[in-house]
Order: sequence, then structure tokens, then C-alpha cells
Amino acid sequence: MSRIAYVNGRYLPHRDATVHVEDRGYQFADGVYEVCEVWAGHLVDEARHLDRLDRSLSELRIPTPMTRKALSAVLHEVVRRNGVKDGLVYLQVTRGVARRDHAFPAPGTMPGLVVTARRSDRGGQEALAARGVSVITVPENRWPRVDIKSTSLLPNVLAKQQAKEAGAREAWFVDQDGFVTEGASTNAWIVTADRRIVTRPAESGILRGITRTVVLEEAAALGYTVEERPFTVDEAHGAAEAFITAATTVVMPVVRIDDRPVANGAPGTVATALRLKFHAFSALS
Amino acid sequence: MSRIAYVNGRYLPHRDATVHVEDRGYQFADGVYEVCEVWAGHLVDEARHLDRLDRSLSELRIPTPMTRKALSAVLHEVVRRNGVKDGLVYLQVTRGVARRDHAFPAPGTMPGLVVTARRSDRGGQEALAARGVSVITVPENRWPRVDIKSTSLLPNVLAKQQAKEAGAREAWFVDQDGFVTEGASTNAWIVTADRRIVTRPAESGILRGITRTVVLEEAAALGYTVEERPFTVDEAHGAAEAFITAATTVVMPVVRIDDRPVANGAPGTVATALRLKFHAFSALS
Repeated sequence: MSRIAYVNGRYLPHRDATVHVEDRGYQFADGVYEVCEVWAGHLVDEARHLDRLDRSLSELRIPTPMTRKALSAVLHEVVRRNGVKDGLVYLQVTRGVARRDHAFPAPGTMPGLVVTARRSDRGGQEALAARGVSVITVPENRWPRVDIKSTSLLPNVLAKQQAKEAGAREAWFVDQDGFVTEGASTNAWIVTADRRIVTRPAESGILRGITRTVVLEEAAALGYTVEERPFTVDEAHGAAEAFITAATTVVMPVVRIDDRPVANGAPGTVATALRLKFHAFSALS
Repeated sequence: MSRIAYVNGRYLPHRDATVHVEDRGYQFADGVYEVCEVWAGHLVDEARHLDRLDRSLSELRIPTPMTRKALSAVLHEVVRRNGVKDGLVYLQVTRGVARRDHAFPAPGTMPGLVVTARRSDRGGQEALAARGVSVITVPENRWPRVDIKSTSLLPNVLAKQQAKEAGAREAWFVDQDGFVTEGASTNAWIVTADRRIVTRPAESGILRGITRTVVLEEAAALGYTVEERPFTVDEAHGAAEAFITAATTVVMPVVRIDDRPVANGAPGTVATALRLKFHAFSALS
């Protein structure tokens, strides 16, 4: 089955899905995106993803490309046309096409909208979660507005590549004070020896992850104590467990940080419980 | 005359110049660019622009899209096909098209190359230089690798828009220590009361501008003392002159910084002399 993408009003074969070279997303990283998990054909936590999209657009003063109802219809149609049961839907909104100039284009310039979807290998993901993943730590070098889910992702690309070359799946950015901010495409968590769950507050240095928000709720529902506070790399090295969260990975146990195993080097029970709880949430949402 | 763009091996009408939605330039700002002045049909300082392009690509480990000779031929052909005598040529190289994943795509993925050209209004630019421009100052909030001319330009876009809304042409980023780094798309300079020319060293916090390099040479040739050192906003406010440099603006006098005029609020003699000297250089290069 060939893939279909939505591009600025049209459903196109994936190979023909193109944007103009003067799209500001291409020339200036002047755009935002969302990635939403698809579970059994429905979008997990769609409303919160669209809320966050609205916030990102508002912070950058990019107009909304269409009503929420229309956008939701496009997302579902792309998922349907691609026959995605388990997978991801990706959407990107840019400030549109205009003669190259850093400042915003004339009012009335139509924002660009691209939506794609693809299947994911759930079995492979579950096998990975059963083994756990490695992360490396790298100095934080992104701009301070990481609360906006923009496509200004070059530092994330370089960090992720560095992780890959070190045999790891993720890179955790570490700020000047030694605190972990977040991963290149995930939020970062640890579990202390007395089973408190710790993750950085979303007020500075990180994106407010949708999966992060759900996991905070789940953890509370499961009776865990959750502390929203920064943690250091040292604290992570000494933690009982560590894990990462994102729509693409859900809850993924971390079993190694840089060259040191986390606890006994196996996925922890808290992370595993939260992963199962999240799947249950996805099935119901 | 309709415009022509070069896109990945083909010369296309500008309206048909498109890149794939999974071009990493569009999804990750994973690309670099150059803008070169065109003077009387030739490219000003082409070799130094292509040297810098090579450096940017090398720092990001993006393969060179073609030999320098072939790239030069494309640049000249785009200029020729667009009938540009006085204007700009823009080139962008990205890490190519690949299934979305932060880490680098498989070795062998072809980098993307786009080249466009356009005419500029030399009369308008000279009139602007005769009046001088205003700049505002904004906190530095870009990632530290601004020495790479990447398309990760969202902070620059926001700063430039803020300048525009304040009635200014440029925004100067100011670092945590109060020193000016550079403009959103230009290098920043001042002239002290005793006619020393001051600009920040290219070792940190700025892009090594090609026009900046030429102006350093010209200033020395004209007998000026040049100091490569950081300067503060206060020092700029008290300066005899200020100006900005870039391929798009050449040497442009700055006559107002935030809400205060620079000296008597008219373009300075040093900036004006350097502008004329640069034009002479462009005509000869």
C-alpha cells in the first residue's frame, strides 16, 4: 500500500509530497510540529496534542491553518488513507511561503500544513522496552525556547547522532548546573531508591511532553509519589530506575547512562508498570 | 521574465521549485546556506563563500553535494537564467530526504541543493545607506554554534520581527555579559571617538561574515586601526559611529540604537568610506 500525505489542501502520494523552496519551514525553521501515537486506528490524546499545537503557534504568532475540527478530520483521514492501525501521525505547520526575508511575511500569508502517517513495529518496540535502552549525556546547547515544539531541531539531530554512534538510543541534555533537562526527543525521568518518581518541572528547560503529562497522572493514580524537580546526572547514575517518555517511545526503560548501568542494568518495575498503564490509557483514549 | 530555481539537479520555474516534505531541511533545520552578492553579473567573493559553505557542511558532517567547480557553474547559471545583474544568489544544502528520524540518514543519502537568485534595488539600498538604519538590542538566545551558517534561524526570525515592529532594520543580540554578539542577519561594528573600528572576534558568539572579513581588510588598507574585541551596548550608545555588514546590506550605517541616536544621528564618515570601498571591491572581484 503506497503512502499518502496531506500537503496544503491536497492528499498526495508520498513521493509527490513537496513544499516550496521558499516555505519558511525550509529556509528558517519557522514552524512547529506534533507527533501523535496511533493506537488501534485512533489518535492517542489528540486534544492535548492540538492544545499544545495551538500554544506553539500562538507563541510564534503563526496563524492556525484551519479550525480544530477540520485539522482533526485531516489527521484522521491521513491515518485512514495510510491504513495505520498502530503507528504515528506527524503534522507540521509553518509560517507559509514568502519571498525570503527574516521578518514575518505580509499578514494574510497562508500557513503551510503537512500531515503524514506511518505504521510502527509494536512488537519491536515491546522487545526494546523489555531490554531497555542506553542514553548518553551531552551539554545543553539549545535555545531557551524549547517549550515551543519548533522544527529548530539541529542541536537535537547532532545529539541524537552522537548517541547513536555511542550505541545509545537517546541523548540527555545537561544544563550548566549539572541538571538533566530532557532528551533530544523525549522527557527524562528517574526513580529514587525509595521509589519516588522524579522529573524536571516543565516551567524551564524542557518541552511539556504530552506523554509526560499522562505519566504524571498515571503515576499518581498508581499511588507513587512524584517529585517535579530537576535531577543531576550523578543522581541519575545512582537511581533505582530511569526512563524516557515520548509519543514515539511511550515509556521506555533506561538501563545505562553513559558508561554506567542503572541499578542492575535491567528495566525497572516502576517504568514497566507505567508503560503497561500507558498502553491501557492509549487503548481507552 | 519569470524566475528560475535550481533544485536537486533541475532548473525549474520558481513556482515549481519544491523539496520533499521529508527533506531534513524542512523537518529538522538540518541544513546550511550562503547568500552571495551579485554585482554586474558576477558573484562577489565567491571563493570565500564556498570555503565557508565547505566549513559549515564539514562541521555538520553533511556531504558536499557536488564539486566546487560544478557548484560554481550552477550558481552562475542560476544568476544568468534569472538575468540578475545586481542582486543576490542564495544556496541551501540539506542532509537530504529520509524517513523522519533525528539521527543522520543512511550513508549515501544524497544531500539536497537549492539555488535561487533575485535582483535587488541598488538605488533603494543606496538611499537607505544615505539615511542610515536603526537597530534594537535583544538578549542573545541562539544556540552556541552560530559559527555554522545553518538554517536553524527561528530566534533570528523572531528578533528581526521585533526590530521591524519597533521601526528598526536589525536586532543586535546581547550576551549575558552585556556584549553585543551580532545582528540577526549581519555583523555589528562601532567606531570609537578616536576613530578606532571595533568588532567582535569571530572566535565565539558570531558567524565569521564574509563581508566582515573584507571590511577588516579594507579598513586596514585605508589606514584605520581595527580592534577585534567585544563591545557593550553602552559603548555602542556612546560611539562616534556604528554600522552593520552582510552580503545583503554590504556596509550599512546605523544611526539609532534602541531609543538613542548614534552621535548626531547621521551616517558616519568611516562607515560611508567603507561602503564605497566595498563597492569598489565588488566591482573588481
